[in-house]
Amino acid sequence: MSKPHVVTRRLTVHALRWAPVLKVMSVLWLILAIFMAIPWLVLIIENEPDAMAFGLSILIVLSTVALIWLLTHQTPLELKTRQMFVLTTLSWVSISGFASLPLVLGAPQLSFTNAVFESVSAITTTGSTVLSGIDQLSDGLKLWRGIMQWLGGIGIIVMGIAILPFLKVGGMRLFHTESSDWSDKVMPRTGGIAKATLGIYCGFTFTAMFAYWLGGMAPLDAVVHAMTSVATGGFANSDASFGAYADSPRILWLASLFMLCGALPFVLYIRVLRGTRMAMWRDQQVQGLLLLLAVVILVLTAWRIWQDTPPFEALTHVAFNVISVVTTTGYASDDYSTWGSLAFVAFFYLTFVGGCSGSTSGGMKIFRFQVAATLLRNQLRFLIHTSGIFTSRYNNQPLTEDITRGVVAFSFFFFLTIAGLALALALMGVDFITALSGAATAVANVGPGLGDTIGPAGNFFALPDAAKWLLCIGMLMGRLEILTVLILMTPMFWRQ
Amino acid sequence: MSKPHVVTRRLTVHALRWAPVLKVMSVLWLILAIFMAIPWLVLIIENEPDAMAFGLSILIVLSTVALIWLLTHQTPLELKTRQMFVLTTLSWVSISGFASLPLVLGAPQLSFTNAVFESVSAITTTGSTVLSGIDQLSDGLKLWRGIMQWLGGIGIIVMGIAILPFLKVGGMRLFHTESSDWSDKVMPRTGGIAKATLGIYCGFTFTAMFAYWLGGMAPLDAVVHAMTSVATGGFANSDASFGAYADSPRILWLASLFMLCGALPFVLYIRVLRGTRMAMWRDQQVQGLLLLLAVVILVLTAWRIWQDTPPFEALTHVAFNVISVVTTTGYASDDYSTWGSLAFVAFFYLTFVGGCSGSTSGGMKIFRFQVAATLLRNQLRFLIHTSGIFTSRYNNQPLTEDITRGVVAFSFFFFLTIAGLALALALMGVDFITALSGAATAVANVGPGLGDTIGPAGNFFALPDAAKWLLCIGMLMGRLEILTVLILMTPMFWRQ
Repeated sequence: MSKPHVVTRRLTVHALRWAPVLKVMSVLWLILAIFMAIPWLVLIIENEPDAMAFGLSILIVLSTVALIWLLTHQTPLELKTRQMFVLTTLSWVSISGFASLPLVLGAPQLSFTNAVFESVSAITTTGSTVLSGIDQLSDGLKLWRGIMQWLGGIGIIVMGIAILPFLKVGGMRLFHTESSDWSDKVMPRTGGIAKATLGIYCGFTFTAMFAYWLGGMAPLDAVVHAMTSVATGGFANSDASFGAYADSPRILWLASLFMLCGALPFVLYIRVLRGTRMAMWRDQQVQGLLLLLAVVILVLTAWRIWQDTPPFEALTHVAFNVISVVTTTGYASDDYSTWGSLAFVAFFYLTFVGGCSGSTSGGMKIFRFQVAATLLRNQLRFLIHTSGIFTSRYNNQPLTEDITRGVVAFSFFFFLTIAGLALALALMGVDFITALSGAATAVANVGPGLGDTIGPAGNFFALPDAAKWLLCIGMLMGRLEILTVLILMTPMFWRQ
Repeated sequence: MSKPHVVTRRLTVHALRWAPVLKVMSVLWLILAIFMAIPWLVLIIENEPDAMAFGLSILIVLSTVALIWLLTHQTPLELKTRQMFVLTTLSWVSISGFASLPLVLGAPQLSFTNAVFESVSAITTTGSTVLSGIDQLSDGLKLWRGIMQWLGGIGIIVMGIAILPFLKVGGMRLFHTESSDWSDKVMPRTGGIAKATLGIYCGFTFTAMFAYWLGGMAPLDAVVHAMTSVATGGFANSDASFGAYADSPRILWLASLFMLCGALPFVLYIRVLRGTRMAMWRDQQVQGLLLLLAVVILVLTAWRIWQDTPPFEALTHVAFNVISVVTTTGYASDDYSTWGSLAFVAFFYLTFVGGCSGSTSGGMKIFRFQVAATLLRNQLRFLIHTSGIFTSRYNNQPLTEDITRGVVAFSFFFFLTIAGLALALALMGVDFITALSGAATAVANVGPGLGDTIGPAGNFFALPDAAKWLLCIGMLMGRLEILTVLILMTPMFWRQ
């Protein structure tokens, strides 16, 4: 038996170990509370009853922040790898939790489950929704849905640049050397990239707002859609998603452009701005994404024209919806699940793909497909020549064992997570197509699934509560590149 | 311009290079012709018109064999790796082609496409069928369907033991050391294992015939089902597959046993017979297969009991159909696609799994899942400890880089092939579930798909011809562990 004071000391040690984690999180919560003030003010000015819900939510978040600060203000801010894993996961979970408060307390009167689903879907920039009657929501709530996705978007870029490469998750170390090299040479302080990224992100958002407004959107719609486009989030201000603009090619093309902007690596924008004009086009990942989009859009447009859709209309809607799914935004301008079998299967596959690493998009990400393709090519070469190991390069960096192993492991875990999630959904009685496409769309952070229930024309309301919780776990795991979360579930992690 | 005699010499060199390939194949065709004589004799005795079709088929095959022998009888039998790749693929293609002759010429009057589909499905031991009215076929044709699968079954075992490990395809080298070590120590001649395997294969087949007959099957049904069980092929003598024996638990359990026997590594039987009693149970792959089967059968039986099926009936049918799909046999005793969403998704996943390497079964195979699991465990460990490479063992052999790379590449190619095939099927207008499950069942050599058309209660007749040809390619690629075929499609292979 340990003596009482030994137990106390142990507890203190434990508390001290996690104090820095709480301290960092409380800063993030504070930022969340500040952004909650925007819809709150709008609702107060418009004299809407939802103002109360936001006021109360802000109060709850601020009290928690204050409590944590009281407890941890003397803790030094030192974080080791293990704490980083815990911090990363807990941040996204806790922010989603706090962000759901206005939805529980406010007008849509969502059940706790639905509110959490909606906010997890928002913060992870997935864009699946349980709401119908979105058009009638108060301006404040529409704004809040946009702000949540916008915050999630910048969160994931910063995480992709600064944290995941450090944690070496899923071959992300490939981008470690690059960004750290980069900061050593060009930027004096480590915060430099983060600030520049934020600037670019805001720049795109404001440009999008202005462009959408000029393109014919109502001001509030322009603001919300700008935020959810650049964040590749996918929440729209209408039950019909972008179907509301189905007859406005100008807006659909603008949205396609901004979604694409959100799906390109943000460090490359910084490089371009600093003078390396061709940095974007010379990047192998960007080339891969653009090539993929071009091929898929071409093929599906031909398919649609063959189905007697007028050519320009076909091109517009195919480009919009393909870009929406590949960038993991999840807007829909049309029910593409009715475009025939080829389109159905194609959109199912596209759900997995994702944009570039270091952007706001989710999914497998282009670079992993490219690294995998290199491995496969080498393996064929090996079988023919029966000897020799072939070293390869990616973006002029050697593809080390360490990186390829990370990419392979990620790919397996990614598909296993989706397969496991789909099986669990099936256990709750969800049909085959809904289970499979729902699991994929959640883990890849896309938004809509396929089939009658959760397809581009449906929403997630009808699913059983347990299924919604499972999908929340899936969205968070996908957003955190699977392994960051998975590792917390191993006994190995908690030993020592 | 080359001079005429230079061209002639080049052509001669080319012809000489491929002459040994043709020579080996002609031996295989001769064996096929000999086996064709069995249904031919049966049909002659029963005085059935189909006898003509078999007589003609035998004549065609024998003439081809004679022609090849005339041309190549002086060629020395030396084969290099490249020729082995070509030989392996061409053998399966040509045998399927010749085996389809009686189906084109005989009573079912199948179109060329349907006949080739049926025989490719037979020879690859897949077991998908385009026939209906199977119960009314002549005894000779029923026999021929069984014999084709039986020949395919022994073919794949011999290939898995002797050829694929040599070609290093898909991590099969893991079984190279084992079988070659084995032959050095215990057997004086290299043909030893092949002969012993053939003996065991025949032993199982005769045991199964006798057991089925005692269990209550008609003699011809016992013979055909014995051949298609041990070969994990899946052709049955009825449109209802094993639904004809749905009320005979004795027969269903016997079939489950013999399918399982076909899915275990045949080298281990030899070891057991030579005195290493525990060789089978100590094998990691066998343990994995049995564990998987036990868990899945347990869970799905519970699910069926919860759906108000009587416990023993539930257990019998779940065990039969799960073993049928996992061993890639493809019998069905019931339309399991109506067992609810969980079963639907579970059977979809089980389609991919497959039995043990070195058996008659197809699919991914258990050892690849186990090797992949080891890689993933190591990767998690690596992320936590941030350094170190972890070496692992499989069945007491070190998992070398070479093997894990092979396994990883195979897994990617396997899923890519299925995904590509499903997309191509969708292009022909096949619906999502049929396309996805059809591609999977073809490449994994299982047999039935899911959905209304090709599910366990349907058949493949209704698919468009182009889709059937694609599925033939899929079945052959799956049977030849993908890479053996894929490599022939690279320009790299044909250089030099």
